[in-house]
Amino acid sequence: MPFDYSSLFRPGLPPPAARWRGFPRYNFVGGHNDAANVPVAEFIAAAESVLSREGRTLATYGLESGPQGYRPLREFLAASLEARTGMRQTADEVLIVSGSLQALDLVNAVLVAPGDTVILEEATYQGTITRLNRLGARIVAAPLDEGGIRMDALAGILDGLKAEGVAPKYIYTVPTVQNPTGTVMPEDRRHELLRLARAHGVPVFEDDCYAELTFSGERPRSIRALDDGGGQVVYCGSFSKTVAPALRIGYLVADWPVLSRMLPMKTDAGTGALEQMVLAEYCAVHFDDHVAGLRGVLKEKCDAMVEALSAEFGAAASFAAPAGGIFIWVTLPEEVDTWRLFEAAQAEGVAINPGVEWTVERALGRNRLRLCFGHPTPQVIREGVALLAGICHREFGVPVRGANMER
Amino acid sequence: MPFDYSSLFRPGLPPPAARWRGFPRYNFVGGHNDAANVPVAEFIAAAESVLSREGRTLATYGLESGPQGYRPLREFLAASLEARTGMRQTADEVLIVSGSLQALDLVNAVLVAPGDTVILEEATYQGTITRLNRLGARIVAAPLDEGGIRMDALAGILDGLKAEGVAPKYIYTVPTVQNPTGTVMPEDRRHELLRLARAHGVPVFEDDCYAELTFSGERPRSIRALDDGGGQVVYCGSFSKTVAPALRIGYLVADWPVLSRMLPMKTDAGTGALEQMVLAEYCAVHFDDHVAGLRGVLKEKCDAMVEALSAEFGAAASFAAPAGGIFIWVTLPEEVDTWRLFEAAQAEGVAINPGVEWTVERALGRNRLRLCFGHPTPQVIREGVALLAGICHREFGVPVRGANMER
Repeated sequence: MPFDYSSLFRPGLPPPAARWRGFPRYNFVGGHNDAANVPVAEFIAAAESVLSREGRTLATYGLESGPQGYRPLREFLAASLEARTGMRQTADEVLIVSGSLQALDLVNAVLVAPGDTVILEEATYQGTITRLNRLGARIVAAPLDEGGIRMDALAGILDGLKAEGVAPKYIYTVPTVQNPTGTVMPEDRRHELLRLARAHGVPVFEDDCYAELTFSGERPRSIRALDDGGGQVVYCGSFSKTVAPALRIGYLVADWPVLSRMLPMKTDAGTGALEQMVLAEYCAVHFDDHVAGLRGVLKEKCDAMVEALSAEFGAAASFAAPAGGIFIWVTLPEEVDTWRLFEAAQAEGVAINPGVEWTVERALGRNRLRLCFGHPTPQVIREGVALLAGICHREFGVPVRGANMER
Repeated sequence: MPFDYSSLFRPGLPPPAARWRGFPRYNFVGGHNDAANVPVAEFIAAAESVLSREGRTLATYGLESGPQGYRPLREFLAASLEARTGMRQTADEVLIVSGSLQALDLVNAVLVAPGDTVILEEATYQGTITRLNRLGARIVAAPLDEGGIRMDALAGILDGLKAEGVAPKYIYTVPTVQNPTGTVMPEDRRHELLRLARAHGVPVFEDDCYAELTFSGERPRSIRALDDGGGQVVYCGSFSKTVAPALRIGYLVADWPVLSRMLPMKTDAGTGALEQMVLAEYCAVHFDDHVAGLRGVLKEKCDAMVEALSAEFGAAASFAAPAGGIFIWVTLPEEVDTWRLFEAAQAEGVAINPGVEWTVERALGRNRLRLCFGHPTPQVIREGVALLAGICHREFGVPVRGANMER
């Protein structure tokens, strides 16, 4: 009889993991990216160049750059982010993290205690919701429209919390290619958000992970840029969506009074150095061109997804074409429970994100789903959406018919 | 006036970080390694080879290996650990982690709630102590001798806790090149530890991070090997000390009932893939030869440290020459407060670990210190120890005289 741990496990653990069985055939989940666009030859050249020059520094924790991360990567980011977002910063205000998920952990570690209140977009990144639930935070949902958080609603929420005597710890927003809705908050609304945050003394946590991937290549200045040194905004981003998700490199930009509190909570003895070195070497030369090319590829895939949804679901699927990124947020008729659709689809090799995983309130997500299109080819997108429509029809009678055929 | 976060920070945070000012000149802290032994050319070749073959898989989280980590690296470890430690496992029982610090976090995440009791060696790794203190665990210190944990004392501790009605969550041990004492627990004592752990229903958490670095190249079988499928032991190790610390790759070996509970707590979306790929490619060919060479280099540095301590401190410094690894644990006379010595030395560019950071009870560490010798050259070791002896003499009158000179 092997030793039984069951009486020793900490109470409240999530269910055990199932064994991994490989990716589903039609993989519309996860932030995976286009495989053909991984710059393999350039990574090899970058590895050779940077290791030849500095490989021996791998013998020390943090290379020779200290706990904030490889200095040339921070210097690239300081300059590149200014050009892209309008934010001005030095390398000393950049903290390299082990994927932007660690940015969420660090911000929560310094600000959020159990019972604390945070304001999230009503539909937002699952990883953010899960973390805050595990921490025992109270999440207040801010309603969204096609320009992101509705400022009238946010003002009401802030006033309501103030009346309760509650000081929310932050307003978390993905303002540029919102996850999952794919919208972009206009600059005037960003000013208004900042004005409200200042008036109520609430930090803004700006997650800009998808911001480079607007299909137009245009984007408003970041909220942190508009704050212009006010220190109200903690900013995070990632190379997962712009370069490659299996490289676990993200970054935080914040003023030193906050960064210096997050640093001691980064207890991983540094972020993977080889990935930082190769990225710094690669990005200094290729980043802008690479991202420009990737935008075009993702736009094609997005078009394939939009066309497939229209063809297969017809009027049953309502959605706004995303302004960029790698996912689309789809609303199905009320009678469709997308959690049940998720389970039925999984059994047939189609992976989708049921809406309840991406919404603060389950009711909002019940008949919605998120479909990622960054990884599958247009052909796989078409096949998978057709299969999904067939499953949805079988389970819910929806769509009654697709645009192209009776079911 | 920039925004003031002070009223929003979570209570009980550690003090803010100071800005990093570069490594001290005489750097006897941190698990840094020998820079000349970083296999730069082989890493370049490995990167070229593995990226040419599989680089496009960087487009998916977890490559094509799932959340347990790059499968070829797990396969290397499954075979290599069997040869090195006697443990038998498949790649499915190996979890790649983002440095062995994440192994500590995952084991704690599934087993340790605030108020829970754990048993640690009385002198042990600072990172383990810090984590458990932050978690609010109760730490019970098991006395050490030249063979590691004293089994009579452990039996008494376990009986005492049983009488209190307390079920400790684990016994944490670094049995092979103990940190900081550098001892190796003999195999018969490992059997006895296992017998006690089984009798009391307590898991063993075996941290084998330094185990490859015995100067003799010999080592007893791991405790997990002796358990032989009993499931009593969770094992962790790392490439930080054997290959390069800036690569943040460690591993856990455990049975699926435990591993499947840890996996959902690994919320970093995977460990850096490029580092895993390069390590797997490199280690499959070079690991054993590399480690054999490293042992010789570290032994030379250890000898330089032992000689310098004897020459500069004479009888004032007592220590056992370590059986391997990269550090030595030194006891100074009672009148020396090594925390004060640490502060005085820091001001003169000599970094040491004061003993209180490496002991469960401060009293044990008060006049002890840990000196790491993996990174500095023998010449820097000699200079730094001479400087340290001078500072110690000035501050405490100890050593009265070194072996070579009046002070």
